Amino acid sequence: KMLGRVLCAVLFVGALQPLARASQGHISVVLLGATGDLAKKYLWQGLFQLYIDQVSSGHSFTFHGAALAALEPGQRLMFDVLKGLSCPPDEAPNRCAVLKDQFLRLSQYHQLRTAENYTALSREIETLLRQEGLREAGRIFYFSVPPFAYTEIARHISSRCRPGAGAWLRVVLEKPFGHDLASARQLAAELTGFFREDEMYRVDHYLGKQAVAHILPFRDQNRQFLDPIWNRHHVERVEIVLKETVDAKGRTSFYEQYGVIRDVLQNHLTEALLFLIMELPANVSSAEEVLQHKLQSFQSLWGLEKNSAVLGQYQAYNSQVREELQQAQDYVSTTPTFAGVLIRSESLRWEGVPFLLTSGKALDERVGYARVLFKNRAYCPQSETLRDAEHSQCKAKQIIFYFGHGALNTPAVLVSRNLFRPVMPKDSWKEAVARSDLHIFGQPLSDYYVYSPVRERDAYSVLISNIYHGRKDFFITTENLLASWAFWTPLLDSTSLQPPRLYPGGVDNQHLLDFEMVSGGLAFTLAEPAELLSPTRQMPSDYRAVESKFRQSPLVSAWSEELISQLASDMERAALGSVARSGHFHLALSGGSSPVALFQRLARHHYAFPWKHTHVWLVDERCVPLTHGESNFFSLHSHLLQRVRLPYFNIHPMPVHLHRRLCVEEDRGTELYARDIAALVANASFDLVLLGVGTDGHTASLFPRSETGLDGAPTVVLTESPVKPHQRMSLSLPLINKARQVFVLVLGKGKHDITTLLSRVGSEPKKWPISGVSPSSGQLVWYVDYEALLG
Amino acid sequence: KMLGRVLCAVLFVGALQPLARASQGHISVVLLGATGDLAKKYLWQGLFQLYIDQVSSGHSFTFHGAALAALEPGQRLMFDVLKGLSCPPDEAPNRCAVLKDQFLRLSQYHQLRTAENYTALSREIETLLRQEGLREAGRIFYFSVPPFAYTEIARHISSRCRPGAGAWLRVVLEKPFGHDLASARQLAAELTGFFREDEMYRVDHYLGKQAVAHILPFRDQNRQFLDPIWNRHHVERVEIVLKETVDAKGRTSFYEQYGVIRDVLQNHLTEALLFLIMELPANVSSAEEVLQHKLQSFQSLWGLEKNSAVLGQYQAYNSQVREELQQAQDYVSTTPTFAGVLIRSESLRWEGVPFLLTSGKALDERVGYARVLFKNRAYCPQSETLRDAEHSQCKAKQIIFYFGHGALNTPAVLVSRNLFRPVMPKDSWKEAVARSDLHIFGQPLSDYYVYSPVRERDAYSVLISNIYHGRKDFFITTENLLASWAFWTPLLDSTSLQPPRLYPGGVDNQHLLDFEMVSGGLAFTLAEPAELLSPTRQMPSDYRAVESKFRQSPLVSAWSEELISQLASDMERAALGSVARSGHFHLALSGGSSPVALFQRLARHHYAFPWKHTHVWLVDERCVPLTHGESNFFSLHSHLLQRVRLPYFNIHPMPVHLHRRLCVEEDRGTELYARDIAALVANASFDLVLLGVGTDGHTASLFPRSETGLDGAPTVVLTESPVKPHQRMSLSLPLINKARQVFVLVLGKGKHDITTLLSRVGSEPKKWPISGVSPSSGQLVWYVDYEALLG
Repeated sequence: KMLGRVLCAVLFVGALQPLARASQGHISVVLLGATGDLAKKYLWQGLFQLYIDQVSSGHSFTFHGAALAALEPGQRLMFDVLKGLSCPPDEAPNRCAVLKDQFLRLSQYHQLRTAENYTALSREIETLLRQEGLREAGRIFYFSVPPFAYTEIARHISSRCRPGAGAWLRVVLEKPFGHDLASARQLAAELTGFFREDEMYRVDHYLGKQAVAHILPFRDQNRQFLDPIWNRHHVERVEIVLKETVDAKGRTSFYEQYGVIRDVLQNHLTEALLFLIMELPANVSSAEEVLQHKLQSFQSLWGLEKNSAVLGQYQAYNSQVREELQQAQDYVSTTPTFAGVLIRSESLRWEGVPFLLTSGKALDERVGYARVLFKNRAYCPQSETLRDAEHSQCKAKQIIFYFGHGALNTPAVLVSRNLFRPVMPKDSWKEAVARSDLHIFGQPLSDYYVYSPVRERDAYSVLISNIYHGRKDFFITTENLLASWAFWTPLLDSTSLQPPRLYPGGVDNQHLLDFEMVSGGLAFTLAEPAELLSPTRQMPSDYRAVESKFRQSPLVSAWSEELISQLASDMERAALGSVARSGHFHLALSGGSSPVALFQRLARHHYAFPWKHTHVWLVDERCVPLTHGESNFFSLHSHLLQRVRLPYFNIHPMPVHLHRRLCVEEDRGTELYARDIAALVANASFDLVLLGVGTDGHTASLFPRSETGLDGAPTVVLTESPVKPHQRMSLSLPLINKARQVFVLVLGKGKHDITTLLSRVGSEPKKWPISGVSPSSGQLVWYVDYEALLG
Repeated sequence: KMLGRVLCAVLFVGALQPLARASQGHISVVLLGATGDLAKKYLWQGLFQLYIDQVSSGHSFTFHGAALAALEPGQRLMFDVLKGLSCPPDEAPNRCAVLKDQFLRLSQYHQLRTAENYTALSREIETLLRQEGLREAGRIFYFSVPPFAYTEIARHISSRCRPGAGAWLRVVLEKPFGHDLASARQLAAELTGFFREDEMYRVDHYLGKQAVAHILPFRDQNRQFLDPIWNRHHVERVEIVLKETVDAKGRTSFYEQYGVIRDVLQNHLTEALLFLIMELPANVSSAEEVLQHKLQSFQSLWGLEKNSAVLGQYQAYNSQVREELQQAQDYVSTTPTFAGVLIRSESLRWEGVPFLLTSGKALDERVGYARVLFKNRAYCPQSETLRDAEHSQCKAKQIIFYFGHGALNTPAVLVSRNLFRPVMPKDSWKEAVARSDLHIFGQPLSDYYVYSPVRERDAYSVLISNIYHGRKDFFITTENLLASWAFWTPLLDSTSLQPPRLYPGGVDNQHLLDFEMVSGGLAFTLAEPAELLSPTRQMPSDYRAVESKFRQSPLVSAWSEELISQLASDMERAALGSVARSGHFHLALSGGSSPVALFQRLARHHYAFPWKHTHVWLVDERCVPLTHGESNFFSLHSHLLQRVRLPYFNIHPMPVHLHRRLCVEEDRGTELYARDIAALVANASFDLVLLGVGTDGHTASLFPRSETGLDGAPTVVLTESPVKPHQRMSLSLPLINKARQVFVLVLGKGKHDITTLLSRVGSEPKKWPISGVSPSSGQLVWYVDYEALLG
């Protein structure tokens, strides 16, 4: 310890010369985790760059490396790093040697373990300031430590290391910032107890990458070209990609807890996405405006579902985890090391445009980019071989923000020459010499305007400079962070137990990770090859729809997906038959969750369905406004009616909301509906009624022991549900039984008990209303999936 | 003449041998225009082929060439052609020589000029039949003559040349079948006076092209693969193209009257389009089913407008016309020799998919194809250079029906290998050897499954064989023809005076004819280069919407088409502004005929219109059921609501029909509507009200001297119209005047008097209700077209 203090004193004396020049005040930079990987690789170099850039700024600096290690070994470790610092290529070697010498003299190591250590550090800084007669400008604390250490360190800094009055405090935090929404909230709440929002600089080093940082300025400076085309009418798709060749070996203790979505997509790729899709603020350099627009973009994104992603894991990962984490031989990790995610926005600008985010380890090459591909809206009559190729409107049009590595091996902005010549700031971006041998995204490089940075800068150097300048727009605010976790957490939850596809790694992956957009989500293009299957995994079974009898009526059974597709086809056949026979198809549909997949299937796959001649009626309705999320009609509207071309006149919601009140008897909604049915449906006999079954045996909104609707006249009734909302409107059982066809759809394990029971009992509608369904002169068909049938 | 008769007699004697074998009866083929271009080039060869194929069929044949020329020169001309007939390559040369000799002996020339000539021809046939003891099977009359001659010839054939009882008559007609809908109707009506529908075979030789004729069988045989992808979700675009290198030189007397749309698009390309887009009939070889489905496809197509097409004319055309047609030096032809047309369907299957039809003369190459390009829905993480290229899901996916010529120089069907391996009939299509050096549509030929005909057949041979077999599905029925003209005529009318873009011809065209889809139509990509502009041409008058004042309020005036487009843009701007401000746009629309064009424009050209957030209200309504043709809502529904995606909840028809009766006071429809407005529209102030003006100065359904609605409370009222239906419901003037913006649309000469009057009078709503429109704190804008303004 004595040696350390002596060394420090020596250093301080040597540092007097540069310090004396300070007129803007003194800045103390404390790097916590000064001997860790990140510090060795990037942070010290970034601090040295800061010193080189700002030595004449009027500020004076000291640099304080800190770690848990004792002074002597810590010091040795740290100075080994410092000695290896390299001079930037654009710096004169002589000047750099002098500056490096000064930088070393201004740097010292501190063991920061106990509260007292922090107090001591603060005192040393104060002593120096006093001795040198320096005004304090501020203190930067850079947390390059594991997240579990954050709270403790934050507490010490806040209580013991705050700078004097008039000077600022900036704490710089490195990810991970939590593991999901709940943990991120908790961590944020803890930090908020110690620091003000404006004191915290959360690093996402992607915001320091030159091509990412230039997305917003590019959009701003090229508004005139982009305004007409930066929307769903012109953009075909957007790809945001980070591919790595390395794997997680040696880092599995971190990686096994996080996986690729938390490691890359939730932060880096999301930030790039937001820069691309946010509405452009009037002032793109206003941190506040940018943040507001970012948050609004989050609001416009569709929620992610299980099928929004495809996940993979390189084959060696599991054994690396077993070895490094000393897990048992039967341990199976489901942590994804590869992910493709489909993101959609429902903003007017982007509705329908797919945003594909992709990242993975052990892939074929190292490269990162955000690529905006435009639709080809042109036709070029002249044959390609007879055209001079330049500027053809029929060539692909794209704008690429190339983060680095890959074929170009430099950050770059590429704009197809048939789009426009972009405006670029001449002081920071230069037009690159076209290398015609190089092909990028299917086109020779000469098809693009290519710009690369005048001076390539490491992301951490950029960020450290931004911290120094207090540019908060290059960092992640608490709100931004929580919005991102709120967006990603549902996907993380719904896929946490899903076994990822195994891939061999490297170029051997070939087409194995190719994926496609299918029915609103993503799926791998190729079937999983058997030799890569983990032995513990089951193959999906290949059952086909089985036909048989249930309660004396025809039964169709299959796994739910095939069952739905069979039901949809049968409905289309019924509809076509009915329209051919009578010119109309009167279809009464039930609410609930089971039919949603059916509605989607009808909307997406049945183009020949005679919607123009179909009337849609409701079997039952909850007494809520039609625009309410719980309304059966609302669900029917969002999943089906909004997507097909049904005439307005053919849509018949139940009149549960009359005179701005809900299901009041004297408003006579039931009568009104019964009268509409009588007026339009011949003999009040629907062509097809679709029903479901509740676990209590209810169907439509006819519940066990209901006083109305189970017998009597074929009419429309108000009923009471045991669950909220209690009030319901429903077709009565006698009205349902007048139908030409009744299909009953039963899905899921949860329905197994009632299905079993129904297979045994007779017709007892008072106990189980569904058992009273028996069309007097029509046909009844049961559609029951295997889960409901077999449990 | 004597020589001719002698020759004939000689021929007949020589023909005895083959005729004797007939057991199925005798067929007489009469080729009218036997010495014309088409006959020389294709028809005689086709007839010879028929003879070769059917000589052993049990039918006997005679072939009668006919023309206006006298016997001797006609005969000489015709036999010059016949002598040049070539033997098909797959025929044994010896047999062919014998058959050719027989064919020549069975063929004779007739002068057909007068009625008597036709009688004589018929008598000769009868004599032959009698002499040879032959039963008559039928007569084929092939019209290879200009259309002006049709009626006369048809009359003669019908009255003098019909075959005997039990034998059939088939008349084969060559295009043009009229010049537009009216002339086609007239021609069809005339022909119908002479022939039954089943006797007429209208030739579109594209239906004889092997790749065109195979479109429907292909779709049928590959249903399993195509069913899921043959729709708007998967198809990116469809191109149907016929490019020619030749120009119209020598044919301008025909061409100048017709142009490329009538010559190629209305018939050939339309037929190919219909095969691609029609719903697939259950039985694709049923001529009747195919026709029905074709006609339904026509119904689903959007009407063509001026901006649906880009038109061009090769530069030398005008001087060729002047020379050949002996026109004056200042003659300027506007006949297009190049056209690109954008066709859209509003069927559920194809909505939003662009169908691009293109054809032109003097282009860079001769080629024809129909190309279905699928969307790329895949992402392939592995970089292209490191992938084995086969079967990648990221390569383009397309199906091409290659009509012939071009790089392949054969008819072909191409299917991308990453789509599926198609089912092809082995007896008629064979898999072609992949020529990897050849690139087609941007990909090496090895990326496709390529099939070509086992035996390549000329279209006319195919068609003549189909006539012989009575296969009517290969010909154009009257209904089909008229449907096609009904579809194309509006475009022909609206572009008839439009100067086409001039192009140099050949490979020099370069990018000059490239076109793009812009705001619902097409436009050339490049500006017209000045040096190609014809000096005599006037530029289209460049009137812009004129802005001025009318009754102290802003006035926008233009010709009605531009006025409507200006109004639609202004409405979109208002809507976007309102949604940005308040999240909603409350729009109240008037009935009547003026807004129909506006509704169509909004539906087709304003994709960015925020429909999802727009509420549509009615300004007034007639007391008729909503599904009644006179209902304002019904018109609004057909022209606008049915075509955009407005949520059901945002549509607010006036409740004129309650409890199954119309506008009964005690049903309180007006109160109900006023209450809905109060509940949804903040401060009952609509964001935009669109009004019209009647010749009597009425607006909404507020008529002069009305007792209600002109003053008093801002509410909804029942009124009386002087014209039927008398009963109306209407917003009151005070309610209208609460709006933020009111636009008044006035169109047509018929409104000139009231417009003039309104420009002079003050506010006298009792006399002229429109004069009382004066938003209390909103803005009023008049949109008056030149006809209304200037008379």
